[in-house]
Amino acid sequence: MSVHQLTLGDVLGEHRRGRPLDVAAVDGDVRLTYPELDARVDRLANALAGAGVEKGDRVLWLGQNSFRILELLLASGRLGAILCPANWRQSADELAYVLDDLTPRAVVWEESEAVAEAREGWSGTATWLKSGDEYEEFLAAGADGAPAAPVTEDLPVLALYTAAFDGRPGAALLSHRALIAHSEALLHQRQMENGFTFLACGPMFHVGTNMFVLATFLLGGKNVFTPAYEPKEVCRLIEAEKCTQAFLFGPMIDGLVAANEGGQYDLSSLRFVSHTPEWDAMITVDDSPWCASKMGGYGQTEVGGMLTFLGLGIGGQGYAGRSSTLVTVRILDANGVEVAPGEVGEICARGWSLFSGYHNRPELNAQKAIGGYHHTGDLGRREPDGTLTFIGPKLRMIKSANENIYPAEVERALKTHPSVADAAVIGVPDDRFGQTVKAVVVLKPDAEVSEDAIIEHVRGEIASYKKPRHVAFTAAIPKKGYTPDYDALDAEFGGGAYPGS
Amino acid sequence: MSVHQLTLGDVLGEHRRGRPLDVAAVDGDVRLTYPELDARVDRLANALAGAGVEKGDRVLWLGQNSFRILELLLASGRLGAILCPANWRQSADELAYVLDDLTPRAVVWEESEAVAEAREGWSGTATWLKSGDEYEEFLAAGADGAPAAPVTEDLPVLALYTAAFDGRPGAALLSHRALIAHSEALLHQRQMENGFTFLACGPMFHVGTNMFVLATFLLGGKNVFTPAYEPKEVCRLIEAEKCTQAFLFGPMIDGLVAANEGGQYDLSSLRFVSHTPEWDAMITVDDSPWCASKMGGYGQTEVGGMLTFLGLGIGGQGYAGRSSTLVTVRILDANGVEVAPGEVGEICARGWSLFSGYHNRPELNAQKAIGGYHHTGDLGRREPDGTLTFIGPKLRMIKSANENIYPAEVERALKTHPSVADAAVIGVPDDRFGQTVKAVVVLKPDAEVSEDAIIEHVRGEIASYKKPRHVAFTAAIPKKGYTPDYDALDAEFGGGAYPGS
Repeated sequence: MSVHQLTLGDVLGEHRRGRPLDVAAVDGDVRLTYPELDARVDRLANALAGAGVEKGDRVLWLGQNSFRILELLLASGRLGAILCPANWRQSADELAYVLDDLTPRAVVWEESEAVAEAREGWSGTATWLKSGDEYEEFLAAGADGAPAAPVTEDLPVLALYTAAFDGRPGAALLSHRALIAHSEALLHQRQMENGFTFLACGPMFHVGTNMFVLATFLLGGKNVFTPAYEPKEVCRLIEAEKCTQAFLFGPMIDGLVAANEGGQYDLSSLRFVSHTPEWDAMITVDDSPWCASKMGGYGQTEVGGMLTFLGLGIGGQGYAGRSSTLVTVRILDANGVEVAPGEVGEICARGWSLFSGYHNRPELNAQKAIGGYHHTGDLGRREPDGTLTFIGPKLRMIKSANENIYPAEVERALKTHPSVADAAVIGVPDDRFGQTVKAVVVLKPDAEVSEDAIIEHVRGEIASYKKPRHVAFTAAIPKKGYTPDYDALDAEFGGGAYPGS
Repeated sequence: MSVHQLTLGDVLGEHRRGRPLDVAAVDGDVRLTYPELDARVDRLANALAGAGVEKGDRVLWLGQNSFRILELLLASGRLGAILCPANWRQSADELAYVLDDLTPRAVVWEESEAVAEAREGWSGTATWLKSGDEYEEFLAAGADGAPAAPVTEDLPVLALYTAAFDGRPGAALLSHRALIAHSEALLHQRQMENGFTFLACGPMFHVGTNMFVLATFLLGGKNVFTPAYEPKEVCRLIEAEKCTQAFLFGPMIDGLVAANEGGQYDLSSLRFVSHTPEWDAMITVDDSPWCASKMGGYGQTEVGGMLTFLGLGIGGQGYAGRSSTLVTVRILDANGVEVAPGEVGEICARGWSLFSGYHNRPELNAQKAIGGYHHTGDLGRREPDGTLTFIGPKLRMIKSANENIYPAEVERALKTHPSVADAAVIGVPDDRFGQTVKAVVVLKPDAEVSEDAIIEHVRGEIASYKKPRHVAFTAAIPKKGYTPDYDALDAEFGGGAYPGS
């Protein structure tokens, strides 16, 4: 073993020695010090090995938040295996897809009809353990002591399902090294210091909650787990465990303010983002770069969480700030050539926190890593001061007179018009240019704007060749999740002749 | 190239894109933005390549502090070569040793008689460049654009001469990866944030100054270079460049307080460690873990700088705090077995910031890395609360009745006696036990203490078998640098029969 290696198992071992009295995990009645967590992880790893889990194998968690996700992650890591905490609220069909795609060797699950149905229909073989007594008996039967499996930091250890690039969700694989590197960058940006306590009240099948659980773990802090966001219980836990931070966004914060009307809970241990006067009065407003920038930046599961931090460019021109100190970012065109500042291209990245590809997608992985840079599938722009702006997903490209035009960029420009409520952009066949840009626009109530005025507005915002040649007005943009349903728009408004089609 | 790689060259490229307007380096009249630094580094790298510098080759700097050390480091890094900034104040003999040991391909030097003498006596071949016009002409002749050499982060890029383990100083080799990892840990502990400005007024042949230059560089901050510590000039630079931090320790701080009597310089931009009321009134006292703990911890060149930070264990039992988040530490006995908390053993470490061995010392390197852990050669103890205490260098070991006893541990116990001014411990031959412990003690003026009282005192501090059987009183302990001259002590007080001797 090289003297340079560091795995999650090494981190846990260091905390066992360095924090014998410190609490690692709290969950309901469960309260584990680092040595207690370490001993459970050893037994769990040995039990999983006994159930046939080997290096590279997947372990699947189907349930709500639990300290068991952390211990399954660490136990999988000790074996060179991979834990996937998946969204248990999916339909039986979606869960069946996950089982087929991930082919786990072991599944730990919480009571759910959909899970039971997916299990019944699955032809694969795995050890199924119900979280609770069955899991505890399994763990207790494991031998003491760390398993002998040699684990290196480049092995994947966490799998998180994320957006569909080829129409199916993919399990992004994150290595020990990627998780430790991302955690370290977060320790810095968030100024997470000795004694930090994190309340995991967001979903742990999502990178946003996991990244703080892992940074807290790397630091040797305390993670508090609660099954799901429940405002009163979150308030109670913040007070009881003196939480420094919880996984919270706007509406979740409003929920806490309402739940704590009258100030029955002391939330002053929370050092967090300023939100409303009521909220700011309840907590301690934090001035770390992460909190001062209102958690600004750009990220995705495939980069371990955050790729850029607004905290590294507060006051700059781009609202995604600058690259994390452990990555390098380039804005590339379709040929892999860096575009000039001010031009839109694909956000591409290299560095320590990047994922190791999607599970079982060799072709997609090769395509995403072409040229030695991870291609995020998102569009961005480097501003003149060097800061970055996230434009939108690179869902498709229009080619007009040999120029590449990304709908997301034109849509952003359209939406800056004061009368435009929503907009989407498609390419329509054109004899002379191949394609031309067509805007589909939803006006605000009672607004009246001409086609020409819309086109002129866009011309003032971005390069002239990207402006629409045609504008259609409509009542609502059809959507697929958060993004326009381009196929439906093409069908309705005459789109076609896309490059490669 | 893997999407996971990150070298110093990648970091510089990221800053060129992300900080086109930000100043990277200031030195006298020189003021370089990141794009300007990047362009100079490219030309310098190409010029060095033209002079025959290849992957693995060494470039030697013999001079005072300069921005050229940073650009030589980055240019060497672009070629896979290694920069060594060495102590130019050494004698001609010592410099001759460095030349023979390092066999540099290029030497950049500042006017110095000792350097000229060492050069004349050296039989090796290198390109010699005098810092100043000759260096600038050499650089200007280099081609634009990054050299094509493929560089990976595991390659050494910085060499720093450090303590003699085998009687000769060794050049500790630090890789891109080690420097980036150590810098990131420092960004966190020191809360170095966007806009950080560091004044390099300590010697850059030492890891202490370099580690802050590199962390500032990783962050994309501003490094201000000054040839050496000169109190008035340091005050002037802090005010002029609004420095956030400088390389300062106790007596250096006192020097600034004296130089700034009357408050002619505004030092309020400095966010630093509390020292005296006068000092605290001049600066902004900083509450980051690094400053709040008064820069406490344990480190050495071979671990990239700091291995442990007191900031991760303020208020704990051990005054070295806890391991940096990117390393793991074990206290091992002579057989490589971990000792129990409270017991003294060698501080051993593994992790991202560790060095890549000493240049040209294969046997020593194998010995230092035995069992996959770097052996620091220093003694430490894990306290019951998990924090660490640094005991002293493991210079030698006494073996008494099969028990290992380290002189440094016994010396520490002796020095806690109120009447003891100084102490050293040797092993004397013993028919029954092989060796027994003998203390050589210097009492404070007018103090009177019996041999038995000294022995009883030590018995109360550490395990009984480690206590001295004999005590000799003397006027002064002979020293070699900061440590006792054990050979002289053995000769004078009858030491001998050491294990392995």
